[in-house]
Amino acid sequence: MGLGNIFKAFQPKDKVFFVLFDKVGQNLVEMSKYFHEGIQEFDLNNDDFIKKISDFEHKNDDLTHSIFVELGQNFITPFDREDITALANKLDDIADYMYASAKYIYLYKTPETKEYAEFSLLMHKACLEIQNAIINLKDFKDPAAVKESCIKINSYENLADDVLSKALMNLFETNDPIRIIKVQSVLNYLEEVTDKAEDVANIMENIIIKYA
Amino acid sequence: MGLGNIFKAFQPKDKVFFVLFDKVGQNLVEMSKYFHEGIQEFDLNNDDFIKKISDFEHKNDDLTHSIFVELGQNFITPFDREDITALANKLDDIADYMYASAKYIYLYKTPETKEYAEFSLLMHKACLEIQNAIINLKDFKDPAAVKESCIKINSYENLADDVLSKALMNLFETNDPIRIIKVQSVLNYLEEVTDKAEDVANIMENIIIKYA
Amino acid sequence: MGLGNIFKAFQPKDKVFFVLFDKVGQNLVEMSKYFHEGIQEFDLNNDDFIKKISDFEHKNDDLTHSIFVELGQNFITPFDREDITALANKLDDIADYMYASAKYIYLYKTPETKEYAEFSLLMHKACLEIQNAIINLKDFKDPAAVKESCIKINSYENLADDVLSKALMNLFETNDPIRIIKVQSVLNYLEEVTDKAEDVANIMENIIIKYA
Repeated sequence: MGLGNIFKAFQPKDKVFFVLFDKVGQNLVEMSKYFHEGIQEFDLNNDDFIKKISDFEHKNDDLTHSIFVELGQNFITPFDREDITALANKLDDIADYMYASAKYIYLYKTPETKEYAEFSLLMHKACLEIQNAIINLKDFKDPAAVKESCIKINSYENLADDVLSKALMNLFETNDPIRIIKVQSVLNYLEEVTDKAEDVANIMENIIIKYA
Repeated sequence: MGLGNIFKAFQPKDKVFFVLFDKVGQNLVEMSKYFHEGIQEFDLNNDDFIKKISDFEHKNDDLTHSIFVELGQNFITPFDREDITALANKLDDIADYMYASAKYIYLYKTPETKEYAEFSLLMHKACLEIQNAIINLKDFKDPAAVKESCIKINSYENLADDVLSKALMNLFETNDPIRIIKVQSVLNYLEEVTDKAEDVANIMENIIIKYA
Repeated sequence: MGLGNIFKAFQPKDKVFFVLFDKVGQNLVEMSKYFHEGIQEFDLNNDDFIKKISDFEHKNDDLTHSIFVELGQNFITPFDREDITALANKLDDIADYMYASAKYIYLYKTPETKEYAEFSLLMHKACLEIQNAIINLKDFKDPAAVKESCIKINSYENLADDVLSKALMNLFETNDPIRIIKVQSVLNYLEEVTDKAEDVANIMENIIIKYA
């Protein structure tokens, strides 16, 4: 058996990580799309939105768990185990903070359609780039494209910072402290989503630096 | 000297890390037990509670420092130096956030016995599982038991999220913005304790995946 | 070519990282000095302060980017690529949180000269020690001095915790919820600066433990 064949023999087990990361990418894209569309026609008396977001969050938990189970069973991994763990955990944080944002919008009954939707659009764009980057990370087939996606994700995080300060300035105009405390809290959760997307971008850039 | 003897020769220096981590586990269990009991009979005019919590926090600092001193002196470690550092730092964060919670309950003079005690019970349960996991991590004698503890710690973190949202909903009923700001801040510190316990669980699961 | 010459041949490419980290250290020292001096004569009608702080923040971004570009081009690094990435990212966080503090002081129009200046003095002292530590980390020429700086940085972080609780106690005396929410937010950003300095100290201590 030649060296090429040996590598081929390992491939199927190795590939499982990319299959799972692809599914996480797909789930985050769908979740952020649903969030962005739902937030624009938010109805406090209908809890379909929060239930569906919760389902996406659970699905992400299950995929993350599957990645850890595979890590425990596979000796061969496409990149360092620490990188796989860090990437899986940070991707899961994105789903967690999207869910937390939705939960407190619902609990606090303070939909702020305009600026929430600006955040959710940036979140969705960041998730689309994460999905692209995951696809291009596979077999390190296009490191330049991964890097390009990471730069875009960082730019969305910068835009989210600007949305946050603009939203806060508008919020303080209301002069209603209770409302301010509630909406500030939701805005911080929303802003964490793009922060975690930036963490994901940093991890992917590191993986490229190390292996590509 | 046979290979077995060579390993035996290294053991005493290697073991020092588990001795220290055991002491950290013991300290966190005692600290969280004292916190949980104290918070139920909290007396703002008596600062014994905060003094004792501060003592536990200092003891944790000293143990963490000892772990780093040993790291600088020992060539042989039971697992990667990075994992020892990360584990020691995150365990210390648990003590830091317990202390911060106690400090602001005391400074803000806003004891919220019922929900604070729900948090502190979860904190104590998480610390008990951390202690168990540390014991079972020793010599990798029972990886399955470590994993079991980590799953429980994650479930306590999920329950703490629910306690947080319930506590916030009750808090906003008061309609008193100053009180809301103060208690929200304490609740966030308390919730960080179980978050840091989850970080500890993630690190221990990683160690098992790498070595067991 | 002797072994010594081989090492010399690698040196110039290796050294580039220390040159860049030196520049980051210098930038953080200048930024924190400007911040500390500016905050004591803060004028809300003059946006020179925030513009200059923003310039320092952009310069830090550029230096951080240069470090990552070098990482992608150099096979030889003075210490693990992960450590270089972590150090560069956390140093950049210091600049980011200084900028965020300045931005919200300006946006919220709530200069609190006294306690803001106590924070900024600690921030500046921490940055001076970071600069020292970077210099002494070069070629691992003085690990004991790096450690000494790290201990000082940790002590500044502890002092910043005390400034924070004192500032919050004074703030709540105002009984003005809107003002409290705004200033609390600025205080938290300021406190994050010394937290990130502590993270930098932890990373540098780890590097010393690993290599020195």
